[in-house]
Amino acid sequence: MNAQGKLTVIGTGPGSPEQMTPEALRAAAEADELMGYGPYVDRLPVLPHQKRVAFDNREELERARIALDRAAAGARVCMVSGGDPGVFAMAAAVCEAIEHGPAEWRTLDIAVMPGVTAMLAVAARAGAPLGHDFCAMSLSDNLKPWEVVEARLAAAAGAGFVIALYNPISKARPWQLGRAFELLAGILPAGTPVIFGRAAGRPDERIATVPLTEARGEMADMATCVIIGSPATRVVDRPGQPPLVYSPRFAEAAT
Amino acid sequence: MNAQGKLTVIGTGPGSPEQMTPEALRAAAEADELMGYGPYVDRLPVLPHQKRVAFDNREELERARIALDRAAAGARVCMVSGGDPGVFAMAAAVCEAIEHGPAEWRTLDIAVMPGVTAMLAVAARAGAPLGHDFCAMSLSDNLKPWEVVEARLAAAAGAGFVIALYNPISKARPWQLGRAFELLAGILPAGTPVIFGRAAGRPDERIATVPLTEARGEMADMATCVIIGSPATRVVDRPGQPPLVYSPRFAEAAT
Repeated sequence: MNAQGKLTVIGTGPGSPEQMTPEALRAAAEADELMGYGPYVDRLPVLPHQKRVAFDNREELERARIALDRAAAGARVCMVSGGDPGVFAMAAAVCEAIEHGPAEWRTLDIAVMPGVTAMLAVAARAGAPLGHDFCAMSLSDNLKPWEVVEARLAAAAGAGFVIALYNPISKARPWQLGRAFELLAGILPAGTPVIFGRAAGRPDERIATVPLTEARGEMADMATCVIIGSPATRVVDRPGQPPLVYSPRFAEAAT
Repeated sequence: MNAQGKLTVIGTGPGSPEQMTPEALRAAAEADELMGYGPYVDRLPVLPHQKRVAFDNREELERARIALDRAAAGARVCMVSGGDPGVFAMAAAVCEAIEHGPAEWRTLDIAVMPGVTAMLAVAARAGAPLGHDFCAMSLSDNLKPWEVVEARLAAAAGAGFVIALYNPISKARPWQLGRAFELLAGILPAGTPVIFGRAAGRPDERIATVPLTEARGEMADMATCVIIGSPATRVVDRPGQPPLVYSPRFAEAAT
């Protein structure tokens, strides 16, 4: 191992400092350099001795290479992701950069610290929609063909998995979420609950649950995680409070 | 809402206090009564004013009903899960109890606080195996027929999802994990990495990665989360350090 340099990849959780682990906070405090997508780095205090390097939200691989270069030069670098760094975030980009980078990078001290990923924070606000078998997918077709996305949605829904969608929509990908709802409406019951969870745990949080047939792409934005129930998912209405949405722990043979 | 009683369902994370959120810790500190499976409750300090109620790991629904009864009687109850309370844990049992319980329970103040679930902690130690589309399944056939488990394994593996298995094995369920590996070996490449992640983040942590054809049920115990790669998952060998296992962010059309 390189005697000095180190790269730690952390997740800040969904956004509230109350949902970030002490481990991740400490890793950030011990770093010489904090790097990451600007809004995520902004969630952390920058200490007097620290250098702050903010990127835009593209070019994940280049961001990983820059961080590895700095660690190889002896810096203690903290790469900051939102949520959990291993779920559609920077940890995979760092591993990919190491695999295809100089041999020296394989000798670096690399650590990944888990965090609360968006679907868990949204699920907690709604009840327990992920209480039974579920899957997590990125709906972005920037890095995979759209036909792969459709095949996975169909396989997951058909097999009885609850589906959590990351990256549901963006300016460059305006129609994909609506198309996903259309496809799923051909497989799942009309009343299947769909949860739109925006900015869970932050001041601008917004959680809404609608039946699948009423779900529309424009109900989500880039900060939304969408959870689509399975045929077994239940909605428990409550007087004066939002419903509890949950997926029972048991399953019948017919799912 | 009931003016006094409250039920908060929290997750302690995988076990290390460093991986528990401040939010969950505060919720526990503010409760009158701490309830849950004994080893999880043991992760928390019991304050002088608090009552501690430890259960064994069965009868989740009965545990939920007792907690709701106490909240309805005016107590501030904290139900303690390991990991994230919404992933194969107590939040779904609480929702189920409310759905089928007295109407009064629907007026209670219920809050679920997310946590770091086991697969995220294991994935972080291994690299980024959950960096692409993945699913999470309980391998227990206590609450669902085994044929449903097999159908979901086949659907997930065939569609290119990485698979995280909770509850992989127990004294009463000794053969299921081995059977799952056999089934998956008929679908996935022989070299597909399988990660056995035991007690991630705790002093007795043990992380091991083997090719699918060498994976055996007896490599897991009740404290293990098993992650099975997709055909795209990569193993990056490193001199003098465990390999990095990651699932690339992109997918080809042929998955």
